[in-house]
Amino acid sequence: MANQWQFDEDTSINIKSEWFIKGLLLYEVVRTYNRLPFALKKHYDRLLNSAKLIGIEDGIPDFEKLVSLVMEGIERNKVDGELRIRIVLAGKNFLLLFEKLPEMSKDIYELGVKVGISPFIRPSEAIVPGMIKLIGTPWSFLTRTHLGDCYDLLLLNERGELCEGSFTNVFLVRDEKLITPHESSGLLPGITRENVLELARAMEMEVEVRRVMSWELFIADEVFLTHTSAGIVPVRRIENKILIEEFPDGYTRILMDNFEGYVMTKEDNWKGISF
Amino acid sequence: MANQWQFDEDTSINIKSEWFIKGLLLYEVVRTYNRLPFALKKHYDRLLNSAKLIGIEDGIPDFEKLVSLVMEGIERNKVDGELRIRIVLAGKNFLLLFEKLPEMSKDIYELGVKVGISPFIRPSEAIVPGMIKLIGTPWSFLTRTHLGDCYDLLLLNERGELCEGSFTNVFLVRDEKLITPHESSGLLPGITRENVLELARAMEMEVEVRRVMSWELFIADEVFLTHTSAGIVPVRRIENKILIEEFPDGYTRILMDNFEGYVMTKEDNWKGISF
Amino acid sequence: MANQWQFDEDTSINIKSEWFIKGLLLYEVVRTYNRLPFALKKHYDRLLNSAKLIGIEDGIPDFEKLVSLVMEGIERNKVDGELRIRIVLAGKNFLLLFEKLPEMSKDIYELGVKVGISPFIRPSEAIVPGMIKLIGTPWSFLTRTHLGDCYDLLLLNERGELCEGSFTNVFLVRDEKLITPHESSGLLPGITRENVLELARAMEMEVEVRRVMSWELFIADEVFLTHTSAGIVPVRRIENKILIEEFPDGYTRILMDNFEGYVMTKEDNWKGISF
Amino acid sequence: MANQWQFDEDTSINIKSEWFIKGLLLYEVVRTYNRLPFALKKHYDRLLNSAKLIGIEDGIPDFEKLVSLVMEGIERNKVDGELRIRIVLAGKNFLLLFEKLPEMSKDIYELGVKVGISPFIRPSEAIVPGMIKLIGTPWSFLTRTHLGDCYDLLLLNERGELCEGSFTNVFLVRDEKLITPHESSGLLPGITRENVLELARAMEMEVEVRRVMSWELFIADEVFLTHTSAGIVPVRRIENKILIEEFPDGYTRILMDNFEGYVMTKEDNWKGISF
Repeated sequence: MANQWQFDEDTSINIKSEWFIKGLLLYEVVRTYNRLPFALKKHYDRLLNSAKLIGIEDGIPDFEKLVSLVMEGIERNKVDGELRIRIVLAGKNFLLLFEKLPEMSKDIYELGVKVGISPFIRPSEAIVPGMIKLIGTPWSFLTRTHLGDCYDLLLLNERGELCEGSFTNVFLVRDEKLITPHESSGLLPGITRENVLELARAMEMEVEVRRVMSWELFIADEVFLTHTSAGIVPVRRIENKILIEEFPDGYTRILMDNFEGYVMTKEDNWKGISF
Repeated sequence: MANQWQFDEDTSINIKSEWFIKGLLLYEVVRTYNRLPFALKKHYDRLLNSAKLIGIEDGIPDFEKLVSLVMEGIERNKVDGELRIRIVLAGKNFLLLFEKLPEMSKDIYELGVKVGISPFIRPSEAIVPGMIKLIGTPWSFLTRTHLGDCYDLLLLNERGELCEGSFTNVFLVRDEKLITPHESSGLLPGITRENVLELARAMEMEVEVRRVMSWELFIADEVFLTHTSAGIVPVRRIENKILIEEFPDGYTRILMDNFEGYVMTKEDNWKGISF
Repeated sequence: MANQWQFDEDTSINIKSEWFIKGLLLYEVVRTYNRLPFALKKHYDRLLNSAKLIGIEDGIPDFEKLVSLVMEGIERNKVDGELRIRIVLAGKNFLLLFEKLPEMSKDIYELGVKVGISPFIRPSEAIVPGMIKLIGTPWSFLTRTHLGDCYDLLLLNERGELCEGSFTNVFLVRDEKLITPHESSGLLPGITRENVLELARAMEMEVEVRRVMSWELFIADEVFLTHTSAGIVPVRRIENKILIEEFPDGYTRILMDNFEGYVMTKEDNWKGISF
Repeated sequence: MANQWQFDEDTSINIKSEWFIKGLLLYEVVRTYNRLPFALKKHYDRLLNSAKLIGIEDGIPDFEKLVSLVMEGIERNKVDGELRIRIVLAGKNFLLLFEKLPEMSKDIYELGVKVGISPFIRPSEAIVPGMIKLIGTPWSFLTRTHLGDCYDLLLLNERGELCEGSFTNVFLVRDEKLITPHESSGLLPGITRENVLELARAMEMEVEVRRVMSWELFIADEVFLTHTSAGIVPVRRIENKILIEEFPDGYTRILMDNFEGYVMTKEDNWKGISF
């Protein structure tokens, strides 16, 4: 298949194909910092693993090829500011979709956001293997139709354990420990989540990656979300119950203050990218 | 959106849209008998219900419009024999894909087929609402990559209950009762399954729709599968263990012999279609 | 078997019997008001049902006989104040154990008590039929060894739903509704629980008996416990998090103020007892 | 507490005590070979562990004391043949109950027995910690009331995994492997089960201790049960479906032929016993 660069209105693919019928749609979301693709190798590896599990890895180019395609795409998208890049593997079709990274309101960092509990269930790892990052799991998109005034809703698994948001990972702070749900509970282990865990360990915080019961969220000292587009997002309210009267000057603040500096200089986030 | 009739190689749609990013892909598979669409109203109602649950029902035409589109499509597809029609709702894109109905080997009806147990889990209704017929649930397509020499693999839910195959529904006969898993176990209640249940009741067979433990499959007197393309398919072997030495002359045979006559004359299968 | 009245130090039974080997131990706890046995018929019916389920109902006298035994026992136990009567069916041995009802500290009613979440799991009704009131379920007595400074610990089932305490039932008040876990979650539906539900309905409170997720406890406006010995016990703290700054003047208080008057005059609590 | 030796009809204990109210009843069943107590140290250790978990280990004598009590008890019970000894810890009461070991019919070894699937659920290790060997779990004794013409009924856990019988452990042979359920499925790991596993490994059989789905039982080449009183018991029929036409001359026979010789000479089964 030849490479094609297209404008939005022309971005079409043939759908009379097996991959479409079967719904074999894998994806990754990458952002840029200083217009360089962040943690591209990590996203690539994860996509490759998912593709291998369902036998469609043939459609993926090698990493060097991907880097040059991504760099060319960034060059072609002459928007001001940073980009968000969706990498989609639809059967044998490999797609890169570029768009401007939405700018986050400063309020979410300064005031914190509201979250709730999703009415839908996220199956645990024991039921649905979590490592396959599929487009369109029903629990995620059904949750997204119920956000209301919440930034995200957190999903519990069939045992009542805390898993993740519909597009975020979640962390708690309690008794001076940083706590996040274990992958066995059922979650997509985000690249930002990994970077936060590494940063916390580098700063010698006590870290627990374990099964977290839903109710532990409600007795946490601090709660925050992570996702690629926004980094670390502090939580202020849970389910209409005020959690934090003033903006936390605890672990969340320390991690936020150090996050960008840490990820920008951490070598494995820039593997294969020349500056 | 204007209607467009396209040949296979041109069947493309724009993918830089929210529906694609979110994986909002619903589908139904309809077959024809005598080149008339079978149980179209039932499929339409099911699609409409799924679409309402995820808030994308706007993309669906009204039923009269669908009938005329389908009839026109059948007319345009001048293949010999019957057609299989995929109805896809991809976000706001409503697609009808026509292809020749694969002809089934007579052997599957005369010799019966082999089935196994899928290594993947089908979440029960309590975990994932079953009524949404999504393209590409991971348990279905992962199962399909493991078929080996089996016609289909049967999925169990997280409680070890029998649910369905990756593209079939399943029935047992035991102690002169016709048994099929209850929807609460987690399954797509196929139109063929419904017709078989109605036929069995019309023939005054004793019918049980209930939770079926996986092991009941192994002590059944007869087992058969149902799906739109092939109707009723008798099972001969399960997991390399011979189940039925000679072709059953039990309930399966009686249902097979009467199935086509029953569904062809049953009015609600032909609602909205003029002969 | 002849009736025997014995002092504590002589209350022995033969243990070289099948019931003991098998652990067939059912029990009920009855209290007196004004030295009359409260809701004796309800306890009797529940015991009889449990006994029938495990096939040991032969050891139970008829209700009239039980009433006369209980009344005689109360007469013989000339302690000051109210009595607590344990009815035990140990295989074919039917035992009545009388003791003084412990007096509750006024503080628990005025200040409220502290509760926590048990580290042990209460299987739901789907796993262990709840209607059999066995002595010595492991989740109850293991929980009781972990009480610490809590009045009781609340047990969750395998799905993370709120069930009951190790010796109490639990109620929430939220958004002006009285909420208590449904029996399907796994709980012994106490006689006091039933009386509170009836009282609330009689007072035209909105009542929900349904699956309650554990975290709902932490966003409730009011929480209280019920058990035979103490009636209604308000909760002030949950898991070291202050819930209620001042003693509730909400639903809990209204129910407490009206409880004794209600149960004392409700006929079905005194069935078979002559005043 | 002084030791007391009593005849059956006098074997009584005081029941007006906390242990009885709470149902704190632990037990072990030991058998003799050549009138010497078999694997007494293993049973002792298991009882001690259970007792520690629920805080009643004070009632247990040290092992040397137990050995001398058991040896004295065997001496006093002058029955012909072997003995079965129940060790019961009822709160702080430590009891040894001696009785003649029931003689097994030779038929069960030569013809094999029938088993079925219990209608009751055995909670997995995740729900109820398995290491506490309680008298009177409801799933066991409810199962025992449903035996019918089966030697034992096998219990499945809440995930449909095979656990154990109501008084036996279960093994499968398939594809030249010896398979038995893992303790995480929920089972009491019997001393006989352990000895069979050790024997099989000593004989260089391939052994799998893992989660076993219920239906694997129905496609096994051989199935057998183990328990203290009878050792290894071959299974001939499952749920009215004939499994094995003639008595197995496979792994089961080899293990049966070698079992007694193996356990009689294995040192750790005779720890603390002088010959």
